[in-house]
Amino acid sequence: MLCPFLNKGRFNVPNFSFSYSTHHDIPPKVLELYKGIKMRDRYHLAKSITLVESIRKDHKIQSQQLLSLILDAQHENTKETGNFTSTFRIGLSGPPGVGKSTFIERFGMHILSQGHRVAVLAVDPSSVKTGGSILGDKTRMPELSRQDDAYVRPSASHGTLGGVARNTNEAMILCEAAGHDVCLVETVGVGQSETMVAEMVDMFVLMVPPAGGDEIQGLKKGIVEISDLIIVNKSDGIFANAAREAMTEYTSALKYLHPRTSFWSPQVIKVSAKTNSGLVEAWELMQDYYNIMKSSGELFKKRGEQRKLWMWRQITSELLDRLGSDKEIKNLVDKLEQKVFNGEMTSGVAADYVVDTFTHKYSITETN
Amino acid sequence: MLCPFLNKGRFNVPNFSFSYSTHHDIPPKVLELYKGIKMRDRYHLAKSITLVESIRKDHKIQSQQLLSLILDAQHENTKETGNFTSTFRIGLSGPPGVGKSTFIERFGMHILSQGHRVAVLAVDPSSVKTGGSILGDKTRMPELSRQDDAYVRPSASHGTLGGVARNTNEAMILCEAAGHDVCLVETVGVGQSETMVAEMVDMFVLMVPPAGGDEIQGLKKGIVEISDLIIVNKSDGIFANAAREAMTEYTSALKYLHPRTSFWSPQVIKVSAKTNSGLVEAWELMQDYYNIMKSSGELFKKRGEQRKLWMWRQITSELLDRLGSDKEIKNLVDKLEQKVFNGEMTSGVAADYVVDTFTHKYSITETN
Repeated sequence: MLCPFLNKGRFNVPNFSFSYSTHHDIPPKVLELYKGIKMRDRYHLAKSITLVESIRKDHKIQSQQLLSLILDAQHENTKETGNFTSTFRIGLSGPPGVGKSTFIERFGMHILSQGHRVAVLAVDPSSVKTGGSILGDKTRMPELSRQDDAYVRPSASHGTLGGVARNTNEAMILCEAAGHDVCLVETVGVGQSETMVAEMVDMFVLMVPPAGGDEIQGLKKGIVEISDLIIVNKSDGIFANAAREAMTEYTSALKYLHPRTSFWSPQVIKVSAKTNSGLVEAWELMQDYYNIMKSSGELFKKRGEQRKLWMWRQITSELLDRLGSDKEIKNLVDKLEQKVFNGEMTSGVAADYVVDTFTHKYSITETN
Repeated sequence: MLCPFLNKGRFNVPNFSFSYSTHHDIPPKVLELYKGIKMRDRYHLAKSITLVESIRKDHKIQSQQLLSLILDAQHENTKETGNFTSTFRIGLSGPPGVGKSTFIERFGMHILSQGHRVAVLAVDPSSVKTGGSILGDKTRMPELSRQDDAYVRPSASHGTLGGVARNTNEAMILCEAAGHDVCLVETVGVGQSETMVAEMVDMFVLMVPPAGGDEIQGLKKGIVEISDLIIVNKSDGIFANAAREAMTEYTSALKYLHPRTSFWSPQVIKVSAKTNSGLVEAWELMQDYYNIMKSSGELFKKRGEQRKLWMWRQITSELLDRLGSDKEIKNLVDKLEQKVFNGEMTSGVAADYVVDTFTHKYSITETN
């Protein structure tokens, strides 16, 4: 079935006149959320994020309507001002226990003091698997949560990691529409969450403990490589020397890696969330990155490529979801998987069989 | 449509009696290829690989029949001997110019002298893009190519990288069936080919020039991490000192990385393909790896997991292929991609739209 929202005349294939200018068929509930977000109302922002997280069909339609209203307004604004974006999306990852929440609390307060409005979102793979969450507990950032210009949102505790990622992408759009010009997306450096977060933000920051090389047990392979900035935390008291050594080690490790963009070489910086040292410098470095990326046009390109990437991710996961939600095909896949694992059937033959059955099934369903 | 081969009674859903025991409906051409491979006939092996590389529908059916005959025989053999495999699949990657072909020439000759039969296959992303090929030229290994117990196959120069990967997977099965117990899969360390090769072999070997750190321009991010063995080549003459330094640097770089398996810590070794030094040691290290992986049961698990991974890869790429081969949907996708890139539509809404249109289209096609 075609997505119901898309049948309502806003999208006309093949002419593609994406006209959002007449909103008279948008339900009052959605218009109210939209107006609330524009008014920077915290309650409406929270309700809107809950809406995009919902898996109910009618909620999905409503959240698409809401997002379209927002993107349309942004697009109009860009056409007027020529300024495609004035928001900054920062990913922050690091092993559990490294001190991310204390850092975000202090760092967020510093950014607020500079006149920005901050949103903190969390992507937590543990919440997907267990329903419990390492991150996203509001009480971890008691001071920041209380500020008018800050919005702290815990990680959604249901759905697949892909679903959580989609929700986070859309929650960012909502937060930005509500005037939060700096979005921090926090994740623990395990599983695939950090790669996913790196692919939805402008800058990816890795926080590490004051220990180097093989001592860092909680650190995932490849995470150093995708980092634009490495922050060595707890650089105070008895850890001061260790932090200095860690900084040297990471700096030399970065030598082996090619920078992700020719406009920026990844940096290493020491901070202490406890004594507040290094916070100002960290924010300055991040702003340097943002300004370079924006003025060079890299930021525009990066966001566009990220959106395209996510579109393909979502097409793929949606297709596989539909395949897996068919019980008969799921049984088939399970049995073929075992055959393939045992080497009794090639991967290619099994794949052909699954896809053929899926396509076949979905074309005969209609004729019955 | 269901794959025609699968309708011929060998696969019965839902009973799944995968009976390959009666082969009376296999075409004579396929039986001849099968017998030729079993006789270790070079001509029949080459023809068989060309068959699995073909995209013609009838060739696809024939190659599935051929592969089924082979896997069936192997499965019977495993049941009898209890020895699930006695082949060794080695991936070899490195930047262009590092000396892979000279190394393979000498190294292959050494393995032959130990009583093994070697096959050399190539995965070359440049051949996919341009039709030309950096690798896979037989004349690069003139001596090895001439040996009765060696088989050197250039990279296929058409199709997508995914298609080339599938072909390589299947070509390995054919080479092994023709008695080549050591398969070397060569690739240049650019693009995504090396990750793909790492996911289809037992051991992944990275060859680097005698230079360290930021001097290595041709080296892709992340490739060191997926390597089970790093070979510093050209460790002779004026490069001897540089090679020693490179070895030290790579050894210390490996400290930052978690080993891929608890049974093996990645090693670094110096060789000179020119003076033959280090070749014996390199082969001994590879055998150590193989024996450890095999006796611990890791090899069996790894191959099974790889096959499952490839099945899912191929399901995904097949679904996306079908989506992309529909002209109308392709037009839709192109237009939506642009909207998404510009930020006028969210990735999620665009993805929903594409998948809905695809599913919708394929269900109404049948009713017309």
